[in-house]
Amino acid sequence: MAAESKPSESQPPPHPLRPLTDDELVRARDIVVEKHGGDGVVLFFRSIYVDEPKKEDLVQFLIAEHAGQAPPASFPRQVKVLFDRVKDGVPQLTEDVVDVGAGEVRRSKAFPPYCQTSYTAVEFGVFHDICVSSEMFQTAMQEFTLPEGFVVTIDPWPYGGLDSDEDVPRYMQGLVYARNAVNDNPDANHYGYPLPIIPVMDFVTKKLIRVDRLATGGKGDSLYPSTPTDKPKKLFEHGKSAEYVPELLDRPLRTDLKPIDITQPEGASFKVHSDNLVEWQKWRFRLGFTPREGAVLHDVCYDGRPVLYRLSFSEMTVPYGDPRPPFQRKQAFDFGDGGMGRAANNLKLGCDCLGAIHYLSSVVTNAEGKPDVAQNVVCLHEQDNGVGWKHTNFRTNRAVVTRLREFVIQFIATLANYEYVFAYKLDTAGGISIETRATGIVSVVPIDEGKVSDYGNVVFPGVLAQNHQHIFA
Amino acid sequence: MAAESKPSESQPPPHPLRPLTDDELVRARDIVVEKHGGDGVVLFFRSIYVDEPKKEDLVQFLIAEHAGQAPPASFPRQVKVLFDRVKDGVPQLTEDVVDVGAGEVRRSKAFPPYCQTSYTAVEFGVFHDICVSSEMFQTAMQEFTLPEGFVVTIDPWPYGGLDSDEDVPRYMQGLVYARNAVNDNPDANHYGYPLPIIPVMDFVTKKLIRVDRLATGGKGDSLYPSTPTDKPKKLFEHGKSAEYVPELLDRPLRTDLKPIDITQPEGASFKVHSDNLVEWQKWRFRLGFTPREGAVLHDVCYDGRPVLYRLSFSEMTVPYGDPRPPFQRKQAFDFGDGGMGRAANNLKLGCDCLGAIHYLSSVVTNAEGKPDVAQNVVCLHEQDNGVGWKHTNFRTNRAVVTRLREFVIQFIATLANYEYVFAYKLDTAGGISIETRATGIVSVVPIDEGKVSDYGNVVFPGVLAQNHQHIFA
Repeated sequence: MAAESKPSESQPPPHPLRPLTDDELVRARDIVVEKHGGDGVVLFFRSIYVDEPKKEDLVQFLIAEHAGQAPPASFPRQVKVLFDRVKDGVPQLTEDVVDVGAGEVRRSKAFPPYCQTSYTAVEFGVFHDICVSSEMFQTAMQEFTLPEGFVVTIDPWPYGGLDSDEDVPRYMQGLVYARNAVNDNPDANHYGYPLPIIPVMDFVTKKLIRVDRLATGGKGDSLYPSTPTDKPKKLFEHGKSAEYVPELLDRPLRTDLKPIDITQPEGASFKVHSDNLVEWQKWRFRLGFTPREGAVLHDVCYDGRPVLYRLSFSEMTVPYGDPRPPFQRKQAFDFGDGGMGRAANNLKLGCDCLGAIHYLSSVVTNAEGKPDVAQNVVCLHEQDNGVGWKHTNFRTNRAVVTRLREFVIQFIATLANYEYVFAYKLDTAGGISIETRATGIVSVVPIDEGKVSDYGNVVFPGVLAQNHQHIFA
Repeated sequence: MAAESKPSESQPPPHPLRPLTDDELVRARDIVVEKHGGDGVVLFFRSIYVDEPKKEDLVQFLIAEHAGQAPPASFPRQVKVLFDRVKDGVPQLTEDVVDVGAGEVRRSKAFPPYCQTSYTAVEFGVFHDICVSSEMFQTAMQEFTLPEGFVVTIDPWPYGGLDSDEDVPRYMQGLVYARNAVNDNPDANHYGYPLPIIPVMDFVTKKLIRVDRLATGGKGDSLYPSTPTDKPKKLFEHGKSAEYVPELLDRPLRTDLKPIDITQPEGASFKVHSDNLVEWQKWRFRLGFTPREGAVLHDVCYDGRPVLYRLSFSEMTVPYGDPRPPFQRKQAFDFGDGGMGRAANNLKLGCDCLGAIHYLSSVVTNAEGKPDVAQNVVCLHEQDNGVGWKHTNFRTNRAVVTRLREFVIQFIATLANYEYVFAYKLDTAGGISIETRATGIVSVVPIDEGKVSDYGNVVFPGVLAQNHQHIFA
């Protein structure tokens, strides 16, 4: 995944599953600009990544590769480019497949003006700024008074479909919070202070279309919001803080946990070869990374035997168990809407991983189609997982034990309040495990202080964490 | 659990949940011998361990203890002694509860002559020797010829109930195997060579009552054994070995796995106080150990709050999915029949546990009622289990991470071919997990070479591993 030099004529062609180099990304971008740019058109780039060959073709290549034979065919380096072609302020979502060797666009697909797409971090900022500066939102905010020094902070959320058969516009909704800015700490936790409104923006016209008000009652109360009162309602008067960054905590972190040092004095037992080929014990695979899925394991073989053609997490959805409108549309699809690869964390030794770690970075695109390095988005390491196999002969009391060694391919993504920790684990017993951990901060909405609800748990004064499930595919 | 000196008058009384000392065990044994011995009676001791006070009484004691107050009542040190009172060769199972302070038997219960009990390691040897020396078994063996240098080895198995409403005798059955003794290695793996007979012994009369023959067919064959042939059938002619001890393997162990060193240079974060009180982070509990259950966690508190009165694994059963008689009675209850504490392994650093380990030993009884040390039957250690909590502020890209630290209380038991690895895990997030791993060698029976079966998988020439489940309570 790390950037490589441009292959010269004498080098073998890159493996078809090798992630993009910086050069390939730039070339693909330039070819798209050449074709679609000019005439007042602005291109807004969403993602640029390898267009994997069809399985039926690639399998033949892999069979030859495993046998050490010449491949039956070569594959052109094809790149998938997803972008908005914006003319007169109207975006048209477009997907091109570019042959960077031939310098040509092989396929181009333009989607209808109103259609869904995944969002980028840039758009989250755009959404936030349009909301807070809009008259409609400012009017809605007049219903409330925030404590001195609190500022509005909006988390973008996918909007999903309409409740009718109409064409589905490209809308985004926002969960509105206040952040205590008294200490001027940008990491003060706004999730402790949810507000009972949800703005909805049209991402084509870039205009707010309405601001939904939320019901804030408890058990037995109305499913619908109450009408506004004459004078603004004072929020968050309890004066309590719900912080998580160490410097804002009102009690110290624990200090009595003695360190556990995990080291591999002779180094790690795995090897990362060129073109992202990884070998560990009897396992080998190629490591890919896509904006949507994060880490992908291609061509997973055990002891020379192909086991999996392609292994990835493909989607995760979170339905919320709160029937009060507009929460029927609070259901994220975080791979498709947000992109786990796009949202991948930059991992750090000692925090996300212990021991002898090998990190891999990825090349992603910014809105202009230029390459950015996504530093350390995947970590590879070995770990001990206890007794793998044991037998004691009860007649002689002689025990034979083997440990279970695991090879872990881990990445972590942040989607607003949530963190997901994904791991593929290959082990010395020939097993593959996949693990997901959901962490971060629960998604919350306001509830009148002192009330309880059937639709979630009160986790802080006036804060309801709604019932929900994380369903991974 | 380690032996302690006899408490003097000036010392506080032992905690009611403190395991037995050597002295207490010997005193309990002597009191039982005094009461039941003499007159030609032989006592065969099965287990001697603390008789825990009733929960309703002990809870009052624990409430006072937690509050740092004087206990509302003291508890006499009562000991449960399970033994056979053998007169004229006929055993009568008896359970006494002995007050070792007062030197008196408080309760005594004699069971009917034919009744079930757990078995001891001594009895496994008795069963084996009676089988192989009996004429009935030797006659059954004439049906087979073993390869030169192979010897018969019999694994005892619980017999369970009858198929009728009659009183249930105290029977034991045996799975018969051959062991390759050519290399004179007592750890050669007899599970590679199962024989198609099962002897059944009456443990009261110590006589074989019959030898069941097993069906050895495959898919579509009879559920019942074939009749013996005229001349002995030659078994295990394939000449292949199925060994697991390193010196008997025909290929070397893997050597390319680089070591992972796990150390705690500042020591461990937990403390083991007197009377087996264990403290780690916000957790505290008392660690017990019983012959039936192995490690038991008493009075588990988190941050001063009682969470569990008593935590143990209580039973495990393994039904086998093979309808061919006599396999309807192949269903072990390994806690009740065999005793997980009695069968606990002596754990070793680097094999069963890595890192800064604290081992605890237990006092068990031998057949004469004398104390034996069961060395290192429980290990305590901390381990890192990855990301415990994480949140990254996507606006600032600042991540806050905590690791999940676990405190593991582990013990491992061997029941004939099977090993069970049990662990209680307490963690820094206030969670309790329990883990069981089933390992060792699968339970096997013979199948005619070349055949396959609906009732299991052929794991070696002529060896069928029957379908089964391990169900833990």
